[in-house]
Amino acid sequence: MQETCASLLNQGMLSKSQIGFIKSLHQKKYRKEHGIFIIEGIKSILEFLPSRFQIHTICYLPQYQSLLPKLPSNIKLFEVNNAELEKISTLQAPQGILALVHIPKENSYTAADLKGTYSLVLDGIQDPGNLGTIIRTADWFGFQHVVCSENTVEVFNPKTAQATMGSLSRVKVWYTDLEILLKETDIPVYGAMLDGQNLYSVKWGTEGIVLLGNEGQGVSDAVAALASQSITIPKAGAGESLNVAISAAIICSEISRNLQK
Amino acid sequence: MQETCASLLNQGMLSKSQIGFIKSLHQKKYRKEHGIFIIEGIKSILEFLPSRFQIHTICYLPQYQSLLPKLPSNIKLFEVNNAELEKISTLQAPQGILALVHIPKENSYTAADLKGTYSLVLDGIQDPGNLGTIIRTADWFGFQHVVCSENTVEVFNPKTAQATMGSLSRVKVWYTDLEILLKETDIPVYGAMLDGQNLYSVKWGTEGIVLLGNEGQGVSDAVAALASQSITIPKAGAGESLNVAISAAIICSEISRNLQK
Repeated sequence: MQETCASLLNQGMLSKSQIGFIKSLHQKKYRKEHGIFIIEGIKSILEFLPSRFQIHTICYLPQYQSLLPKLPSNIKLFEVNNAELEKISTLQAPQGILALVHIPKENSYTAADLKGTYSLVLDGIQDPGNLGTIIRTADWFGFQHVVCSENTVEVFNPKTAQATMGSLSRVKVWYTDLEILLKETDIPVYGAMLDGQNLYSVKWGTEGIVLLGNEGQGVSDAVAALASQSITIPKAGAGESLNVAISAAIICSEISRNLQK
Repeated sequence: MQETCASLLNQGMLSKSQIGFIKSLHQKKYRKEHGIFIIEGIKSILEFLPSRFQIHTICYLPQYQSLLPKLPSNIKLFEVNNAELEKISTLQAPQGILALVHIPKENSYTAADLKGTYSLVLDGIQDPGNLGTIIRTADWFGFQHVVCSENTVEVFNPKTAQATMGSLSRVKVWYTDLEILLKETDIPVYGAMLDGQNLYSVKWGTEGIVLLGNEGQGVSDAVAALASQSITIPKAGAGESLNVAISAAIICSEISRNLQK
């Protein structure tokens, strides 16, 4: 498939069919088919360049060329104008530069990779922005793995990739059957629930999994049953709930605070 | 102006011009002109009904009528069908019920209202979802005031109102000149900056203002100069930054944790 892309995107100016190809990547179906996703903005591109991801193509307005470092010769470059960029961009306000990035081959991470550290495990997150914000937060606090249930929103969704602000280039995000994963692991699994132990009184160890659920439904029953303990962010006001990315961040901060002691 | 709306929206079925009127409220200009904003979903409406806000009109799919309590007679009711709801809704997936709510008259809150408690002060937040999420988080932790600089995104933006998940009915959100406000107050002002004191080692008192800045630029220099101290969420990983709503939440949690001791 990547042969097709390579032949479709020849260096120089974008043709109509090349524009059509990039636009198709706004849709999950075609990202999957071609194994390519889109990132936008110079900051993201500079973070993806030295990462484990391979950049396929960069399209840029002329004034952005000087912001790029020396690039490997296998990266295709296209100078575009504003009208072209607006067509291929996934953003309402395009950021002047956009890259096509190869989706890595299927991961081979397992429960063993989560040993000796803290990770986030997400059960059915649906909002692309929430997933992206969670990845960005995980990166800040040094959580290297974000494991998603198969029904979690796709991480290469442009809104997710954008919300990670480059952190997607570093954090390992993988999809798996959470029931199998949590049965296999022997490290503590802390489920973020409504009726758990006060977060501020949890005795944290040196490793663990923080389990967070869907925006409306929380963690599914079958997965929740595999948590070693439930934890809750104590409510001091009248709000009915917290956004899941907010909950994730508060728990990450609490763990990070503890590890620094 | 509200006379116009009242005469425009007569009970029963929605006319074309009534649909046009509601659609106009998707835009800030017309929300301001008519003093009305839109909230959606039965949960939000049930939280706004007993609040200080006055509901003007409720439009609902037939199956939602039974979910409503007995309503004051001054609230206009319209049964709508899916096609009509899609036209008037601000959401991609309308939630079956939508209300028009009067924007309260200009507030008369001052620095004195922030004494003896903790509040959030926002300098130039631009993303409607971030503002809404911050209000929702403030409500969870019992922060009663969210004060915004004049250039912060409008709180009655449908995306903001939606992201508050009903918390907008409780939290007092007001706009003012932050330089004047911070010069008037005598309580500690903690500015969330990149080079401040480690958040986890701050000695919190019983009152304070947490100051957060614009998504890209942070707190403006003139406002930052009025902070009594800078605080920073310690980074343990490689991420370059945190989303502002995430930063707000982590700081709120830290303060709440301390107040509960």
